[in-house]
Amino acid sequence: MSATPYQQLEQEWRRLHAFRGALSLLRWDAAVMMPRGSAEVRGEQVAALETEYHALLTAPKITRLLDRAQAHVRGLEDWQVANLREMRRQRDHAIATPVTLISRLARAAARAESQWLAARRDNNYALFAPHLEEVLLLVRDKAALLGQALNLPPYDALVDEFSPGIGTADIDAIFKALSRRLPAMITEAIAAQQSEAVLPITGKFTTGKQRSLVVEVMRAVGFPFDQGRLDESEHPFTEGVVGDIRVTTRYDAADPFTGLLGALHETGHAMYDLGMPLSWRDQPVGRDRGMALEESQSLLLEMIIGRSAPFLRYLLPLLHKHLGVAGPEWEFDNVLRALTRVRRGLIRVDADEMSYTLHIMQRYDIEKQLLSGKLAVRDLPEVWNSGMEQRFGSRPAGAADGCLQDMHWALGSFGYFPSYALGLVIAAQLWEALRAQVPEVDAQLARGEFSGVFGWLRENMHGFGAKLPVKELIRQASGQPLSANALLRYLQGRYLAAGT
Amino acid sequence: MSATPYQQLEQEWRRLHAFRGALSLLRWDAAVMMPRGSAEVRGEQVAALETEYHALLTAPKITRLLDRAQAHVRGLEDWQVANLREMRRQRDHAIATPVTLISRLARAAARAESQWLAARRDNNYALFAPHLEEVLLLVRDKAALLGQALNLPPYDALVDEFSPGIGTADIDAIFKALSRRLPAMITEAIAAQQSEAVLPITGKFTTGKQRSLVVEVMRAVGFPFDQGRLDESEHPFTEGVVGDIRVTTRYDAADPFTGLLGALHETGHAMYDLGMPLSWRDQPVGRDRGMALEESQSLLLEMIIGRSAPFLRYLLPLLHKHLGVAGPEWEFDNVLRALTRVRRGLIRVDADEMSYTLHIMQRYDIEKQLLSGKLAVRDLPEVWNSGMEQRFGSRPAGAADGCLQDMHWALGSFGYFPSYALGLVIAAQLWEALRAQVPEVDAQLARGEFSGVFGWLRENMHGFGAKLPVKELIRQASGQPLSANALLRYLQGRYLAAGT
Repeated sequence: MSATPYQQLEQEWRRLHAFRGALSLLRWDAAVMMPRGSAEVRGEQVAALETEYHALLTAPKITRLLDRAQAHVRGLEDWQVANLREMRRQRDHAIATPVTLISRLARAAARAESQWLAARRDNNYALFAPHLEEVLLLVRDKAALLGQALNLPPYDALVDEFSPGIGTADIDAIFKALSRRLPAMITEAIAAQQSEAVLPITGKFTTGKQRSLVVEVMRAVGFPFDQGRLDESEHPFTEGVVGDIRVTTRYDAADPFTGLLGALHETGHAMYDLGMPLSWRDQPVGRDRGMALEESQSLLLEMIIGRSAPFLRYLLPLLHKHLGVAGPEWEFDNVLRALTRVRRGLIRVDADEMSYTLHIMQRYDIEKQLLSGKLAVRDLPEVWNSGMEQRFGSRPAGAADGCLQDMHWALGSFGYFPSYALGLVIAAQLWEALRAQVPEVDAQLARGEFSGVFGWLRENMHGFGAKLPVKELIRQASGQPLSANALLRYLQGRYLAAGT
Repeated sequence: MSATPYQQLEQEWRRLHAFRGALSLLRWDAAVMMPRGSAEVRGEQVAALETEYHALLTAPKITRLLDRAQAHVRGLEDWQVANLREMRRQRDHAIATPVTLISRLARAAARAESQWLAARRDNNYALFAPHLEEVLLLVRDKAALLGQALNLPPYDALVDEFSPGIGTADIDAIFKALSRRLPAMITEAIAAQQSEAVLPITGKFTTGKQRSLVVEVMRAVGFPFDQGRLDESEHPFTEGVVGDIRVTTRYDAADPFTGLLGALHETGHAMYDLGMPLSWRDQPVGRDRGMALEESQSLLLEMIIGRSAPFLRYLLPLLHKHLGVAGPEWEFDNVLRALTRVRRGLIRVDADEMSYTLHIMQRYDIEKQLLSGKLAVRDLPEVWNSGMEQRFGSRPAGAADGCLQDMHWALGSFGYFPSYALGLVIAAQLWEALRAQVPEVDAQLARGEFSGVFGWLRENMHGFGAKLPVKELIRQASGQPLSANALLRYLQGRYLAAGT
């Protein structure tokens, strides 16, 4: 019995999945293990595999099989129809952007990244500007080509690559609702917290002790160390595929929460991947449903659960056990206050949940203007600084704490930032539904039990993979259409209704 | 100006080289970093990349370009002509074996390897036998196909893959010469050493201290840690490519020489790769000239230099420095005696230089019989044990110390073992020539200077890459045709002419 066109496609994607896994390992190794002097050799390896991946995905054979499978779509199961749709989506995206453009962008981004590091170190925007210019020109080409192919405006086409099914109309509506309420809520929260003294949490903790703490928490969460690793890198990330998934974190000797919360963020990503049906694992339908949902999973674990009172009840004895901490600053109330302090800070990655989305709005406004050409690269620092003044009431002292703080633009990742804000919005919306349906979740978390959380997520979200459009998935899981309401209720409850 | 067919071939091989590097990293990671439960996923990745590598190498385009380049061979430089010949050789080998067979063999070998580990741990050959059977059937198919294509008997075809230019006729001649002399020499050496008391060298040395010793020695040898790594694995190996080369070793807490000599062995492999012309690094002509020469480089460093009196003069102060060793057992004479003790042992990797080649003859005889079907898999332990009794005078207590001690057969590496014995033969032959032409080498080694050794090797051997046929290269470097004579002279001098 010969394979049907659809079955042949599944086989093709099994191969593509293996390539993706190999590429992911090359990236993991480059950030975690590779000797310093080997970047050039690794660059050649990654480029060769990416070029081949692109060639396999855009081969005429795939187009032929897609058309033939489409003609027999009635014989397929639901998930197979969705899988076919996702296959076509991947092919359409790949075919829209020629491989020469992709590899020029990859090379420009590699140069821009190293200049971004230097510019941030020297607090000197001028070092970075010409490289950003070069990357931006290529991103514009990519956005235009992608937009033509997908029939979307250029910026929407970039967003679609990261978070299919979400457009600027959704983002604008959410950001409008948030910006109407958040500034006043932040003022109120800061005022309310002013009466609560917080003793500074400091110390000196070896990497070994911090790691053993993080490993114990990750095990409790459900991370499978027999099919995964935890390592260190300059910036936390998740790589690998189900079956060999690898997260990293970054330890701060003075602050155990940097390493722990970074690891929890990445474990959130990993648990999403691990929650998909195993039989779909090498198929497009078995992938995440975009970066907004990815970030919802990481922020749920890092921000909403990781800074909650129930989780802290579980965590405090572990802090004693692994780090030997003691003293009044390590009392429950003090640690909880420290973890939920609202501040008008200037750095995104240090931001609290209350002000986090404002940091994203700043970037969203600016990257759209950069892409359209309304904002010139040379004017970025000034526009950045006045935006921060308007949103947070102060200007950064220099570009290092300003428009150079993130590396996304250096890497050509325009259209990614909204995923973070949408992620927090979605996380709050899922959390609201989860708590309503799993009322014992607080008591479970206080015991270090995560089965209630991940059982619900698996059943209502992870298990669907990329089968449903993202907004339908959110509506089905939460019982509500995507909106900022749940996030606003959550922030109100945690920061403004003192005592709950 | 468009690229000539030859230039296009170089470009194709640059891509193949990048694939090889990626595959090598996947293997390194599997042995050093990968979680235990990820073997299946990794197997799929390796299979996908190997399949694609094979497809690229056997594509009609390559055949066309090879033919067109051959037609214009007069315009090429010497090394390019050799490069073209090696390209064709790689293509011929690849085209002889269908990719389905290669990937079935890879998957069977992955299963067999993990069962081999379990079988060795449990000292239970029955766990391994069915997997060896499966691997052997596929290796037989491969050998038959390769033999047809290359017009060689099956076993010779396998040897040709590892060590092109060397056949069973060469191996038989060398083994005949060695087996005629070695048994009596071993008896004589053991008798001579009986009068020398050796205090046992033991202690308890942390991995960290051993590693710092090994790193210092590897640096002195010339290993580039900015483009390479040293790690631990169950069995020492070398992976990676020039620019990112990775060696491993295995530490024994009670014996610092296990880790050090293992690392020196692998560093010998690495230095060979690093000694090729850099501009050839991604071309077939810039590869090693087969595994017999590879092993000559590792055994030269591990066995001949690493256990020599001059090297020990350099090493002893480092043992004091890193491991804090002291006492009569750490005196120069005692350590040298311990390192050159001749024993009738049962384990290949622990064997001394004098009896090492006998271990290989045992494997050579048996693997030829397994391949031809003269010996059934179920009878392997008994034939192994009686072979050991005949060669070494005693039988192993169990399969773990017997036919399960090496993993080569599990991996499908039939035809590889002779490389080790040939390696030692060639190492002695090169060493004889090197010492004659670099008389100050002993004094240099005693100071930890390796420039004399590697300068000579680079000039006379490494620098030729795969440009010359192996026997021609050996003759040119040593001034002698390949034979066992130099090894016999070397062993005579070191073990039987007391005092030299």
